[in-house]
Amino acid sequence: MHRKEIKEILQSKPSPNSISVSGWVRSFRSNRFIALNDGSTIKNLQCVVDFENFDETILDKITIGAAISVEGTLVESQGQGQNVEIQTSKVEILGEADPDEVSLTILQPKRHTLEKLREQAHLRVRTNTFGAVMRLRSKLAFAIHEYFQKNGFNYMHTPIITGSDAEGAGEMFRVTNLDPKNPPLNEDGSVNYKEDFFEKETNLTVSGQLEAETYAMGLGKVYTFGPAFRAENSNTSRHLAEFWMIEPEVAFNDLDANMDLAEDFIKYVIQYALDHCQDDLQFLEDRLLNEEKNKPQVERSEMKLTDKLRSVLENNFVRITYTEAIDILKNSKDNKKKKFKYLIEEWGADLQSEHERFLVEKHFKCPVILFDYPAKIKAFYMRLNDADEKGRETVRAMDVLFPGIGEIVGGSQREERYDVLKKKMEVMGIPEEELYWYLDLRKFGTCVHSGFGLGFERLVLFVTGMGNIRDVIPYPRTPGNASF
Amino acid sequence: MHRKEIKEILQSKPSPNSISVSGWVRSFRSNRFIALNDGSTIKNLQCVVDFENFDETILDKITIGAAISVEGTLVESQGQGQNVEIQTSKVEILGEADPDEVSLTILQPKRHTLEKLREQAHLRVRTNTFGAVMRLRSKLAFAIHEYFQKNGFNYMHTPIITGSDAEGAGEMFRVTNLDPKNPPLNEDGSVNYKEDFFEKETNLTVSGQLEAETYAMGLGKVYTFGPAFRAENSNTSRHLAEFWMIEPEVAFNDLDANMDLAEDFIKYVIQYALDHCQDDLQFLEDRLLNEEKNKPQVERSEMKLTDKLRSVLENNFVRITYTEAIDILKNSKDNKKKKFKYLIEEWGADLQSEHERFLVEKHFKCPVILFDYPAKIKAFYMRLNDADEKGRETVRAMDVLFPGIGEIVGGSQREERYDVLKKKMEVMGIPEEELYWYLDLRKFGTCVHSGFGLGFERLVLFVTGMGNIRDVIPYPRTPGNASF
Repeated sequence: MHRKEIKEILQSKPSPNSISVSGWVRSFRSNRFIALNDGSTIKNLQCVVDFENFDETILDKITIGAAISVEGTLVESQGQGQNVEIQTSKVEILGEADPDEVSLTILQPKRHTLEKLREQAHLRVRTNTFGAVMRLRSKLAFAIHEYFQKNGFNYMHTPIITGSDAEGAGEMFRVTNLDPKNPPLNEDGSVNYKEDFFEKETNLTVSGQLEAETYAMGLGKVYTFGPAFRAENSNTSRHLAEFWMIEPEVAFNDLDANMDLAEDFIKYVIQYALDHCQDDLQFLEDRLLNEEKNKPQVERSEMKLTDKLRSVLENNFVRITYTEAIDILKNSKDNKKKKFKYLIEEWGADLQSEHERFLVEKHFKCPVILFDYPAKIKAFYMRLNDADEKGRETVRAMDVLFPGIGEIVGGSQREERYDVLKKKMEVMGIPEEELYWYLDLRKFGTCVHSGFGLGFERLVLFVTGMGNIRDVIPYPRTPGNASF
Repeated sequence: MHRKEIKEILQSKPSPNSISVSGWVRSFRSNRFIALNDGSTIKNLQCVVDFENFDETILDKITIGAAISVEGTLVESQGQGQNVEIQTSKVEILGEADPDEVSLTILQPKRHTLEKLREQAHLRVRTNTFGAVMRLRSKLAFAIHEYFQKNGFNYMHTPIITGSDAEGAGEMFRVTNLDPKNPPLNEDGSVNYKEDFFEKETNLTVSGQLEAETYAMGLGKVYTFGPAFRAENSNTSRHLAEFWMIEPEVAFNDLDANMDLAEDFIKYVIQYALDHCQDDLQFLEDRLLNEEKNKPQVERSEMKLTDKLRSVLENNFVRITYTEAIDILKNSKDNKKKKFKYLIEEWGADLQSEHERFLVEKHFKCPVILFDYPAKIKAFYMRLNDADEKGRETVRAMDVLFPGIGEIVGGSQREERYDVLKKKMEVMGIPEEELYWYLDLRKFGTCVHSGFGLGFERLVLFVTGMGNIRDVIPYPRTPGNASF
């Protein structure tokens, strides 16, 4: 008998034919109602057991967490909450779950803190919350691929192990095969990486952008979707040492086209979640409401989860220059009344999270794209604008800021002019011999091109309404933690 | 004017409306015919220039590799090889390409060796061969996601940085932040990893299987698609130090269902390539024919590329046990005439590449799934069969063998019995405290489950007909090479 999944069964009509279904017991009430879940949906299938016809040794083993297989017919449900249920003719115990042992784990059906769930990350996916989050994560990932593929982009795998720290985007993890205690040394006493696996010093990638540019200059439109790493000692709810990133890169796109792409892309992905994950989103919305009940009004979300998602779809993202943003911030009450920790005093200041939140959550109350940032606070590869009337230099950078999340996308038009780029690299001390291939792109048919990076976990945070980035990736890596 | 892509233009009808297109010059014949490519397709767009109406300084810059933007109307083509062409009204030079410098690179249109192309991996995607390979790679990746998503699997990101070498699948790369020259030491003189970023020794993953199992036991059906690493000093045409792997894992699936899944999955992906990549496959088929012209008959492929792909779709994969395979091999002419380097003498021998190729290419002439391998030559987590009448122990392992490639898939039904697994781990010296979470799965509602791993680059090799695995990934990592 072909095993059916619960998601499919719940959408089926009653039928006299016997079906078979397997899953894990979520509850067993009155020796009569099994709530069975197989992970295909957040919903449980109710299996009604006529206990007088069942062996007691079987009934005793239908405990929370046990894996069982059920045979029976699908009938209209008498109870509330479901249209159909199984009238059970046979139960097979596949794998028991000792109630005493279960009671020591998060499988025990009671309220556990998210911290506790993290400690048992190998079991937390069996809870409603993490089942919902991880199904959503999967659907969001697919929506991303579908969006780019539909729009003619080529998926590209950029290298994970890289030979250079060219971008300087942060501290990197070293990848090595040398003897950890007694590495081979050069005559001058430095480590001799010529003896290492790759015959040079190598690190884990912080971004695939530069390599993605090389492919955009041949294939036109590419995107990456892969892991990236930061060896930063940040123990915040928004940072991971290992995370997944999406980086599209498009030849012939200027910054305006880049902003259009980012907005269209994010909206597509959120629409996809609303269309394909109703049950899980509903559960997470209710969960959030419930969780915020005990918080003071001011700390609660202004909108319900799905309303928040829909509001992103229904409004254009506000697009303002950094210079305009500085004016707004400088003249804001929060600045004048010194509510900001970092007061905005002059043009050129790097924006802090509190400023971004002010713009997005208080001032505009919608996603905001800031662009044309001061050249000094941005990376070497960004397209330099002509200086403005006050002689201020900006680059064609953009950041997409989201309520509750802050920066969800960072991107730019790239500097396509050989001489300008070469000079910038010199000034910033980036060795030309390491990035000769990047400069080559500006030598052989250079063109305007742009791209951006989206931190996947931040998107998942936003869509699921979860509060900590450790709870939207299966096995988070943070300082001091590489468990499982 | 909205920029149109060449793929779309070539499918359009002639029209009096002016259109704009950008791309790179592939050739410029007779000061009149520009072959323009923008990466959206392997085909070039012919742009006809009425040179008498164009400034000579512009015409001089229309050189191979230059990026240009063309305006004009789409007209029926008078030439062969295309239905439409552009009657050019305006050419803008976006980025020049100095012919003298181009002549020093692989952009120069002549026959370059694949080795030479590898040295300029940042430019090779602009050649027809690599454009085709990388578009196919992208389409194959998407087909994989589509297959699993359509079939109710959840995409899961397993960790890249892991705290254990539990699987023992090979040498690993160490990930560290310690001072490379003077690492902190414990009192006993060993390296003190408590001071490292993760406060323990960490490595790059060799497989996400064990973590995927944890999620299959909650979500039912999951798959991974991520990078994996082997620090092995193998300089072959089939090994990379960094490669991409797909690992589905399914609760309630036994080995038969696992074999069904592998076969159905591979056929879906190949069908997708045939349906969506005709032009690129045709080019690669012609390329292969051309390349093999100079080889002796015996070294040439038996089938054309697309015929080979179709033959995979049209036939069932042969499924035989290891024991049956040994009988065939033992009694084969190649064994009796000592043509094998490693002669098959008795049951229990590990099969070498020559044996796999014999079965697939000579004996069955189609893909073959071998299963039920001797327990001794397989991993600890594979489901142990009851010993056979001769007392021989086998496990429910399976390998899918492909012509020209060898092993493309390796998988198994997993050992779901707590006691059996625990004992096996003891015997094989795998510390229980490192894999307590893996054992937990057998404690709380264990069930039959199975999965497999597919090396993505081997699939791309098979579908593109390329001969070296370094030529189907953008930036290959091999011993001594982490360039770009």
